[in-house]
Amino acid sequence: MSIERLHTNRRMSRVVIHNNTVYLAGLVADEPVPEDAAAQTRSILERIDGFLAEAGSDKHHLLSATIWLSDMAHYDAMNSVWDAWVPEGHAPGRACVEAKLALPKYKVEIRVIAAVI
Amino acid sequence: MSIERLHTNRRMSRVVIHNNTVYLAGLVADEPVPEDAAAQTRSILERIDGFLAEAGSDKHHLLSATIWLSDMAHYDAMNSVWDAWVPEGHAPGRACVEAKLALPKYKVEIRVIAAVI
Amino acid sequence: MSIERLHTNRRMSRVVIHNNTVYLAGLVADEPVPEDAAAQTRSILERIDGFLAEAGSDKHHLLSATIWLSDMAHYDAMNSVWDAWVPEGHAPGRACVEAKLALPKYKVEIRVIAAVI
Repeated sequence: MSIERLHTNRRMSRVVIHNNTVYLAGLVADEPVPEDAAAQTRSILERIDGFLAEAGSDKHHLLSATIWLSDMAHYDAMNSVWDAWVPEGHAPGRACVEAKLALPKYKVEIRVIAAVI
Repeated sequence: MSIERLHTNRRMSRVVIHNNTVYLAGLVADEPVPEDAAAQTRSILERIDGFLAEAGSDKHHLLSATIWLSDMAHYDAMNSVWDAWVPEGHAPGRACVEAKLALPKYKVEIRVIAAVI
Repeated sequence: MSIERLHTNRRMSRVVIHNNTVYLAGLVADEPVPEDAAAQTRSILERIDGFLAEAGSDKHHLLSATIWLSDMAHYDAMNSVWDAWVPEGHAPGRACVEAKLALPKYKVEIRVIAAVI
């Protein structure tokens, strides 16, 4: 049973596929808008859409999501974007907790596991 | 390979089943007893028992558990309930760290992955 | 589809194997060197190597890693050891966030999911 990796560097792969399941890395926003958790969430979910497409999956096939917020004050802003993005009837298992992230400019980090179609 | 989802709303599913594996959401206590991490843990583990039963699994088939405590001071109270609940010889992989949760009334959140029988 | 557990006590198993996938527990350093996140990371990665070997896997088959740091100030020290340990071209999906761990002496905790070969 093979493993496929995409966007691999010394530290991590953004995408790892094994046994019909795709594991993404924890993703932060590209060019994060300072202090705008909604915009950062939008950027992250666009990146997830792109990586899932490369893996032969999509947001209708999410299994599990972990969301880290640098401050729980961002909960509503993140959710407003998240709730609009998740396809009705296809929401994953989810956990959302507060955690300081690698750099202060990042307010949101999301990691998902999805099924390969 | 199909995906089955149970207790799905706009934001998350409590239960997602794929490839003989069930992913639960991060769960907090129903009607959390204030400041009582042991009681909250009991409530969470009852919910886990119920969701696993619906998924065709049970606590003898846990693979992995993540436990978040709002304060590491709750470690012993949570463990006293956890250790009594886990069936001897069937404990999952586990990680337990401190994290601020979505609402201050929640002291414990637990997420598990289990095998479908 | 069977489950195999290794190093199981009342609270957790260090290793759980199911469906060609191995789930390790969150691991901290054995005899942690105080305040030395690089040394603690080395100890953890040695433990991971050992547990993966027992599970019929190795670090070339990592799928996903979660790294918790007690203080994001340990990020570079942890990464210096992590980057040297990960086999080129085989890095897992990874997320790294700050979280208070079970005991203050622990600066790093790592949990991995890997494929059984």
